[in-house]
Amino acid sequence: VSRVYLNGEFLAREDARLSIDDRGFLFGDGVYEVSRAVRGRLFEDDAHWDRLSRGLREIAISVADQLDAHRLREISLRLLDENDLTGTDATIYLQITRGAALRTHWFPPAQTAPTIFASARAFEIPRTLRETGASAITHPDVRWLRCDIKSVNLLPNVLAKQRAHEVGAFEAVLIRDGTVTEGASANLFGVVDGELRTHPLSNHILPGITRKVLFELAEELEIPIVERPIRAEELPRLQELFATGTTTDVQPLVALDGRPVGDGRPGPIGIKLRKALEIRMGTG
Amino acid sequence: VSRVYLNGEFLAREDARLSIDDRGFLFGDGVYEVSRAVRGRLFEDDAHWDRLSRGLREIAISVADQLDAHRLREISLRLLDENDLTGTDATIYLQITRGAALRTHWFPPAQTAPTIFASARAFEIPRTLRETGASAITHPDVRWLRCDIKSVNLLPNVLAKQRAHEVGAFEAVLIRDGTVTEGASANLFGVVDGELRTHPLSNHILPGITRKVLFELAEELEIPIVERPIRAEELPRLQELFATGTTTDVQPLVALDGRPVGDGRPGPIGIKLRKALEIRMGTG
Repeated sequence: VSRVYLNGEFLAREDARLSIDDRGFLFGDGVYEVSRAVRGRLFEDDAHWDRLSRGLREIAISVADQLDAHRLREISLRLLDENDLTGTDATIYLQITRGAALRTHWFPPAQTAPTIFASARAFEIPRTLRETGASAITHPDVRWLRCDIKSVNLLPNVLAKQRAHEVGAFEAVLIRDGTVTEGASANLFGVVDGELRTHPLSNHILPGITRKVLFELAEELEIPIVERPIRAEELPRLQELFATGTTTDVQPLVALDGRPVGDGRPGPIGIKLRKALEIRMGTG
Repeated sequence: VSRVYLNGEFLAREDARLSIDDRGFLFGDGVYEVSRAVRGRLFEDDAHWDRLSRGLREIAISVADQLDAHRLREISLRLLDENDLTGTDATIYLQITRGAALRTHWFPPAQTAPTIFASARAFEIPRTLRETGASAITHPDVRWLRCDIKSVNLLPNVLAKQRAHEVGAFEAVLIRDGTVTEGASANLFGVVDGELRTHPLSNHILPGITRKVLFELAEELEIPIVERPIRAEELPRLQELFATGTTTDVQPLVALDGRPVGDGRPGPIGIKLRKALEIRMGTG
């Protein structure tokens, strides 16, 4: 049975129960992170902590007494250990909400303890899919205007991902005002006219940790990245397209809305970055 | 102690616990309703059921085996009874999520049971506030583009309401692309140049039940309502402004961003509609 962390305790998953007054349940009033561990080593945990801290600040949830980077590291490592995940690939899920309180749209009393939940799970890298590429569909981006906050207000993402899933596609390419923002659960990079492009950091996309690592790797590899959104009308000219994220790594997208991207096979820039990422993570 | 309904059972509130894998908690993947009861009579319960059913359809959650209008009525009346609320004003909260399952953005397996939660609470009408009027602030509308679905993706509403709360205001008047959409937790009506205006039904506002009732009452009272958004630049010319909703009734807003609305007192159209609503509800 899986062991999870909830508000200071390590428990069997089925014993970790929430109040029906939890603001995560009632309002989606919280943030989360999914991070990666490779054979017991946490990958980019400082970057995940920084993003989490920023999100908590943005929505004014304080965990000062309960959690800091050091404590989160301890919790993560113990979850890996208790779930026999120290020898394999794993993901760690962390969610923090504003806690349980009498339902009001405004914040509950200051003494309300946040809910802190973490769990770990084995992760099997879909190596064949990474090699052969996956398909994607385009979908309207109807999300809120603070997509830079990794909140659990994920219903539009769920609906877009489900639409992709129904047609056997891996990801939905979200389009807002005629430009590609990101995927339903990943950032996107594309090659147009030989230029590697991705949406600049803004309120319209999540500042992905894998995205950040790819910028570092691209610099080492002397691959220039242009932070300019891909426009919908440029999609037919895409030479490469790939999704990036903590569980997505670098996932080539070789078909879009049923038409091949480029020559319909993973392109050289994506392959180069995927391999560099595998070396960095130690998953190659 | 309060008694609530959860997945077929009536329980003490503290015994009603959720799985940490509930998609309401993880994704805000659900819809809700707040309805009103007056001395044991449900108000507009058919309209609430219709809106709920539509929302469930829109996000493809099926409760066919667990809930219908008749069963919801039974649950609601029993909650009123078990909580000694049959002689007073009360609200009934209902939330339905896609249930608990292994976390994936796409939908869980079809056999996953939805989570159905309902509770009732005494409601004290803030009569003084209804008489004297309340204040409001303007705030950017950063919500998603399906505000017609009453989902629990409410973080932007929470943040806007908190901002209002911090400055002692009752409501945030949300503005998108230069036009007033609605409040953080209520629809809005305003009088400009003698004309009663409200945002037309669209993906940008919730189809409020009180809003619907007010259209019926306005027709009886021969007060024309123009469904055209109020533009931000018209706000200084507002003669009246009021918020409407299940727990808001008709709440005059007599100050906006610290400046009086009209002469700073509740206006005649709002008063007339508030009184007609009280008669209809039986709360007068």
